[in-house]
Parts: sequence; structure tokens; C-alpha cells
Amino acid sequence: MSSPRAKATTGRESEHAVTAVLPVPLHTQIRELLRRRILDGTYPPHSQMPSESQMMESFGVSRITIRQALGDLQKEGLIFKVMGKGSFVAKPKAFQNLSRLQGFGEAMAPAGYETFSMLLSAREVAAGPVVAQRLAVPAGSAVFQIQRLRYLNREPISVDESYFPLELGQRLAQEDLATRDVFVILENDLGQNLTHADLQIEAISADESVARHLRIDEASPLLRIERLTYAGDRPIDFEFLYYRGDAFQYRLRIDRS
Amino acid sequence: MSSPRAKATTGRESEHAVTAVLPVPLHTQIRELLRRRILDGTYPPHSQMPSESQMMESFGVSRITIRQALGDLQKEGLIFKVMGKGSFVAKPKAFQNLSRLQGFGEAMAPAGYETFSMLLSAREVAAGPVVAQRLAVPAGSAVFQIQRLRYLNREPISVDESYFPLELGQRLAQEDLATRDVFVILENDLGQNLTHADLQIEAISADESVARHLRIDEASPLLRIERLTYAGDRPIDFEFLYYRGDAFQYRLRIDRS
Repeated sequence: MSSPRAKATTGRESEHAVTAVLPVPLHTQIRELLRRRILDGTYPPHSQMPSESQMMESFGVSRITIRQALGDLQKEGLIFKVMGKGSFVAKPKAFQNLSRLQGFGEAMAPAGYETFSMLLSAREVAAGPVVAQRLAVPAGSAVFQIQRLRYLNREPISVDESYFPLELGQRLAQEDLATRDVFVILENDLGQNLTHADLQIEAISADESVARHLRIDEASPLLRIERLTYAGDRPIDFEFLYYRGDAFQYRLRIDRS
Repeated sequence: MSSPRAKATTGRESEHAVTAVLPVPLHTQIRELLRRRILDGTYPPHSQMPSESQMMESFGVSRITIRQALGDLQKEGLIFKVMGKGSFVAKPKAFQNLSRLQGFGEAMAPAGYETFSMLLSAREVAAGPVVAQRLAVPAGSAVFQIQRLRYLNREPISVDESYFPLELGQRLAQEDLATRDVFVILENDLGQNLTHADLQIEAISADESVARHLRIDEASPLLRIERLTYAGDRPIDFEFLYYRGDAFQYRLRIDRS
């Protein structure tokens, strides 16, 4: 995002005009200017940012100001630093289109991404109140839980915690969960006719466990999805998905009427 | 967050007074009373609701009336039922359904929420590269920017930064942006036939400026939405929406095919 107060300055000339807007701290102005150049492609993905010295000279500000601005952009995931090399522009976020219900592998493969899953656990557990309600089983009854770490182009991108009716989950666990989407197995191998899913989408902070799996700092922003997938009237797959906020987004088109 | 429609009856005495209000169906009155107690914390998140028998006795109504009221609250996501255990209070995030393109006020009013906007700024600015690309105008040309702080039941819930073609924005700025949705003004007052929008949804950390407006800690998780709204082929409203991660979620249903 760009700061509301720094909007007046746009384009090349802003390098000199930028310091004239008084109430906005200098490092914020520099940050906004750099952000704009990243988003508009002046600094393309994977390219090296100008050095701190170059920016000090170009903007006429101190090294501490440049470092503050770069630090902010790094926290947002727009750039990353390489020790002894400088700052580089991060790659654009991967996105999944929400217009049709798809598993992560199904959705990402056509865009040229490579995906796989690492199985963290697969076991019978007692359904807590929320899981029981969603899967329409008595609280405390046995359900099957599968936890996976999902990779996109060999980097961890999400932690998925899924719950299934017991027998269905047990059968799923015998299939190849590393390379195949659960949706595809459910349909092609286990005879389930998936019809739709209800999603809840929100933003949360990573706890220690998810942060460790995703190799991000604790309290980093995550996209959290609660997804309940149905075969007709029957809820058969209830999931919590935790996506890295700095690496993933959802996209969709909505009609007005 | 209290429901506007249920303001009249508050506190203990309402258990007996509630049946005297004639034109409102009994189960609606019970529903509103229960909703108020959930939203005001009388029934805290994750706590168990009183049993159907307890409520029948307490409110002097039939089981069918109680069940209708609970059914309505369940559909809204305020409570959930656990087989053999009873009803439990869900966590109280407000949500907007994404199945249809709606402004925040339009979407939240039917659920009994009160919304309004505080205008932060309304002015002509030079289009940066991203805004220019989205609104299909030359970079650096004049567009109209409107920044608002949106409130839900008197608490700040989102910061909205919107960009419009210049003349359209100037006309918008003369309307009542505090209590009316931009979409509604565009359609009803400015003759725009809104058709659809493209959304990008992601999770980020709050920067200092947004955190201050939303009265949350810096680096708190935010749901960030980029939304480009069209009238036919013409993009006329490009927005960045920053929602409090702890207070808001999107919901939608997606079909498999």
C-alpha cells in the first residue's frame, strides 16, 4: 500500500519535490517512492535495488533514512536483502483464482508452478466442537486428521490441517498425498462427487508452529482459510489453510447482480 | 457491537417485556435478544448457550420458537450446534459475503450492523503507475482520490483508499460519503451501471498510518483487498481496502464445476 499522505508526489520529479511535504517523515516518503517503482516495474522482480550509497546521493538523504525505508519494504515482503550483495525485488505473489473450487495443485499447475506436499501427520483424533459441528458428527467422536506442509516451487507456502469422516480419511491416507490433491483423490479414487465448498477468509498472525514450518518470523501475517467441502448435502472435508501472506493471494471476479 | 434493530429491549427485564411487542414474530424477538447477548458478551465466544429447555422456561415460548431463533443465528455464523451437546457461541468476527458485489454498508446493514464513514481526504492527485494502469488513464494524469475510515458499530474496521476518473470523483465528493456507499451513489445519483469487480485478497502487516487509524498495534495482521470495479468495459473505481484482521472476514461459496 502507499501512504495516504505521500500521494502528491508521483514520477521522476518527485525525487526532488519529495522533501517539501513537511508532515511526512523522510523515510516514509522514500519508502513510498521506492514502493511505487517496485509496483510499476521500474525495479523489476528479482532485480537488484540501487545501492544504499546510490540512493543517498540520488535522494539527498542519510544512510539511516534509506535503511529505514528499505527495512519497511522488507517487512512487507516487497524486497529481500542478501548479505554482502544488497537488496533485491521480491517475486510477485503467486495467486489462486477462486472462481472455481480447486485444490492447490490443480489450481497452480496450469500457471507453470510445481507443487508438492510433505505429510506432517495422518491420524485418528477426537472431534472438537468446531470440527464436530462442521462435519455433522457428535462431539468427541473419531474423525481423521491429515496435516500437510505444501510447497510451491520448492518453497513452503501453506500449512493445511484437514478433517474427514473417519473411514474416508483412513482410505485417503493410503493414497499418494505428496503429489496428488485431496480433491482429485476423493473424486477419482474414492467415488466422492464434490459439489461445492463454503470458505471463510481472514488475516491472522503466525503462531510459533506454523511460522517454523513456513520458515517465516513468528507473528508474520497469514491468510487463514476455513473451508468446508461438500459432496451434495454431506460435508466430507473440513480444512484450515494457513498461507504465507508475503507469497500468496486469492483473486476472484464478482458480479454486481 | 450491538444490533441497531434490537436497541429497545436491553437487560434482564426484556425477558418478560419481549412478548408484548406485537408485529414482530416471536422467534425474531428471541433471535434479536440472543444476538444482543452474544454481541455484548453476556454469552461470550466459545461458551455454551443455555439449553432449549432453559430458554423455553426463561422466555415462556415453545421449543419450535427457540429452534427457529437458534437456526437463524446459526445461519449467520453467530452460534454453532454440536450434536448431543447443544449450541455454542462462535467467535464474533463480522463478515461480508462475496457472492455478490456490494459496498460495505449495503452488505452489513441487513445483518443488523450500523456503518458509517469518516472522510479522511478527497482530492485530485496525479495517477501513479498502478492507478493509471488500472483506471486505463495515462500515468501522471489527474484522477480523484477519496480516503475514508469505515466504522462498524462505531468501531473503526477499515481504511479505504479509492481512485476515480477525475470528473466522476469530483461529483462523488459532493455527495454524502459519510452514510452512503460509493456504489449506491454511483448507480443511483451518477448514472453508472456497475457490472462487476476484480478482487485480489491477501494478508499484510499494518503500517504505522493504518494502525493508528484502526487503533491497532503496528504490524497487526490486515486483510488487504485490491478491488477494481467496472461499468461494462470501463474501470471506474479502483480501491485498496485494509480491514482489521481481528474483526472481519470474507465468506463465499464456490462450486466445483
